[in-house]
Order: sequence, then structure tokens, then C-alpha cells
Amino acid sequence: MQTDTMTRRVEVPGGAGRAVRVRAGELVRIVDILGGQVGDVFAFAAGEQHGNEHHSAEHTRAVTSRLFPAVGEPFVTDRRRPILTLVADTSPGHHDMLIAACDPQRYAQLGVPDHRSCATNLWEALAAVGHPYTGPTPQPINVFMRIPVGDDGTLSWLPAPTEAGDAITFRAELDAVVVVSSCPQDLVGINRGAPSPLAVEVLAGQGRQP
Amino acid sequence: MQTDTMTRRVEVPGGAGRAVRVRAGELVRIVDILGGQVGDVFAFAAGEQHGNEHHSAEHTRAVTSRLFPAVGEPFVTDRRRPILTLVADTSPGHHDMLIAACDPQRYAQLGVPDHRSCATNLWEALAAVGHPYTGPTPQPINVFMRIPVGDDGTLSWLPAPTEAGDAITFRAELDAVVVVSSCPQDLVGINRGAPSPLAVEVLAGQGRQP
Repeated sequence: MQTDTMTRRVEVPGGAGRAVRVRAGELVRIVDILGGQVGDVFAFAAGEQHGNEHHSAEHTRAVTSRLFPAVGEPFVTDRRRPILTLVADTSPGHHDMLIAACDPQRYAQLGVPDHRSCATNLWEALAAVGHPYTGPTPQPINVFMRIPVGDDGTLSWLPAPTEAGDAITFRAELDAVVVVSSCPQDLVGINRGAPSPLAVEVLAGQGRQP
Repeated sequence: MQTDTMTRRVEVPGGAGRAVRVRAGELVRIVDILGGQVGDVFAFAAGEQHGNEHHSAEHTRAVTSRLFPAVGEPFVTDRRRPILTLVADTSPGHHDMLIAACDPQRYAQLGVPDHRSCATNLWEALAAVGHPYTGPTPQPINVFMRIPVGDDGTLSWLPAPTEAGDAITFRAELDAVVVVSSCPQDLVGINRGAPSPLAVEVLAGQGRQP
């Protein structure tokens, strides 16, 4: 059995965002370094010819018939092409694709209009790598975010249950730009404590080669 | 008690789409004329100054903490402004905001690449009224669509349970363009029988005036 080799590592400061470019076949491992921290994850097809193609939660649900993919299942784009596959999860396994990224309007409604947000982190991170996406902020893959659904369709907002070092790993199925935001939300109780850093590790992914 | 007065009525042919312009305060009633028919509903803020502002399912869930609003609750835009309120529902009350609109890629994957789709219906309807939205196809409000969520997060796809004449009514909270598509999906069992017509009735909404 081969071990996947880490080729690069980006640390996302607490409350900030970073973009990484990955090639199809590479693995992207997102680590909750200290525990209790939600990460908002976005994925965009690389290359001008793909325009605004991006991960789409509603298209993914139509493929998997699940609120969130299980290990081995795909995340697809708004053109219904697989862009990521969930390949490993050492966390308690609570992730969300129902709730929008926090944004300036959210914090204005909470009374703190100049608060950092995952939407702003996304736009800054895309600009930093020169990715041309111009659509609305997509529904994120909210890793480590616990939003259980009751029998009557009600959603509960619970704190991230992760411990230090918990991680979730995706395989890129397309050349892609993956953005990870350490959610700066500290006004509602989805993060445990102040925003804390996440690590984004890119692994060569030889483990899946023949 | 006053009765709301119908000011206009648009019939949406089975499998087709239509856009209606509504003013804030007007009521929009969507009627399943024959029963068993899913409608994909989209709402966009009217006016060039609002750019691509549109109903956003993930922002609505963040406000209501529900998979779908209850009567009396709002639907909000990607800028977190209320655009519609659910004011009445004479159907069995099953509606969906989890599954993407059907689109040409969906039908290509089902082996019928030139099938009509709700996404195409949306784009044609927006063009017919000259609305300039340029973003990706938004997550629709899938009225009369029954997608129950199991305890383990699995989604089931069940046929629309509506009977002839069942209706759902929204109040516009902004001047808006509302698009209704009679879902042409006849390859998976969400509609009962062939695509059938829906009616969009716009009511003056005096019932809420003082």
C-alpha cells in the first residue's frame, strides 16, 4: 500500500480564506487544526473555457439523493460533471450543504456590518489566484458544520463537533480551484470559540493509481 | 372580510414556462389545474439596479431554519431581502427546495438530450419579458414536489400528491419577475402522468390592506 505524498500545504488563518489550484486526481485534505471550526469550501472548474462552472449543492443532491455525499460519492457542478469525490473523513461526519455562506448582509442584520464573512473571503481568495468566476456566491460545502434536520423539516444549528486534527479528504475529478474559508461566524454558535485556523493539504493521490 | 381580486391569469402549458411581472403586495397563486404536476418557481427582483438579485434557497433556509418555509414565512434573495411570503396552501403541503431544476445535461444523462427542461423554460421565459438575469440557474422553489428526507439524510423521489385545483399562494414583497415552469420531467416519477398545465393567477391582495 502506497502512502499519499503531500505536495503542498496552505494554512488558512482563523476567519480568513485561501484558494488552492489542484489537478484532477490530486487529493485535498482539510484539517481542523484546533477543533470546533467550520470550513466553507467552494470548488470551481479551472480554465477559461469552463466559464462559471462550479460545485452546485442542488445538482449534487440530485445525483446522490442525499443531503450530503457519503464517502465514495461525488460532488458535481452546475453542469452535472463530477468535480470532487469524498474519499475519507476522520471527523464525526457532520457536514452541511443547506446553509448559505455568511456575508456582509448577514452580519449587518446581526448588527455588526463590518464583520469578516465567508463570502468576502471567497471573493478575495478567487481574486488572489486570478479565477474569473462572476456568478452569485455558491452554496458552500460547509465541512464540520452540524445542521441536523428534524422530522418536521426544522433545522438546528449546533456547534462543530470536531476535535483537533480531524480532517476530511476530497479527490479532485477536474482541474479545479478549491477555496476554503475558516468561517468567521462568532455571533451564532456554530463554531466553538474564536475562529481558528484550518490546513489545506494537497496530496499527490498515488494511492488510487494501479 | 374582503376577497382578493384576480387581476390577471396566465396559463402555463404542460412542460412549458411563463414569466409574470408582479408588484410588491400582489398575491401570486399557482394552481395545479389537473393535479399531480410539479412546478418549478423562480423569483427575481425587478429593476436594473438590482442586477442579478434572485430568490436563494440557501439564504431562505438560513432565515427560517426549515427545509421549506411554513405559511407566514418568507423567501429571501441572495441579498437576504424578503421577495416572497408563503401566505396560503391548499395542497397536501409537500414542496421542495433541495433539487436542481432539470436541464439539458440531466436529460442527456437520461438518454434524451433534446428533451424540454425547466432550466430552458426559465431562460426562455426571462427572455420573453426582457429580464436581464445572467447568473447560473437558481435552485427553484419546486411546488408540489415531494422529496422527503430520511433520518439518515437520504432523499426519496415521490410523485406529486396534488389533486386538481390544489394551489399555493405567495405574496410578493418586492417588485419581481416570477417564473413558473410546468416541469416536463416524464422519465423519473415525480409527476403523475404527462406534463400538465399550471395556472398563475395574480391577485390584487387587498385582503392584507388595513
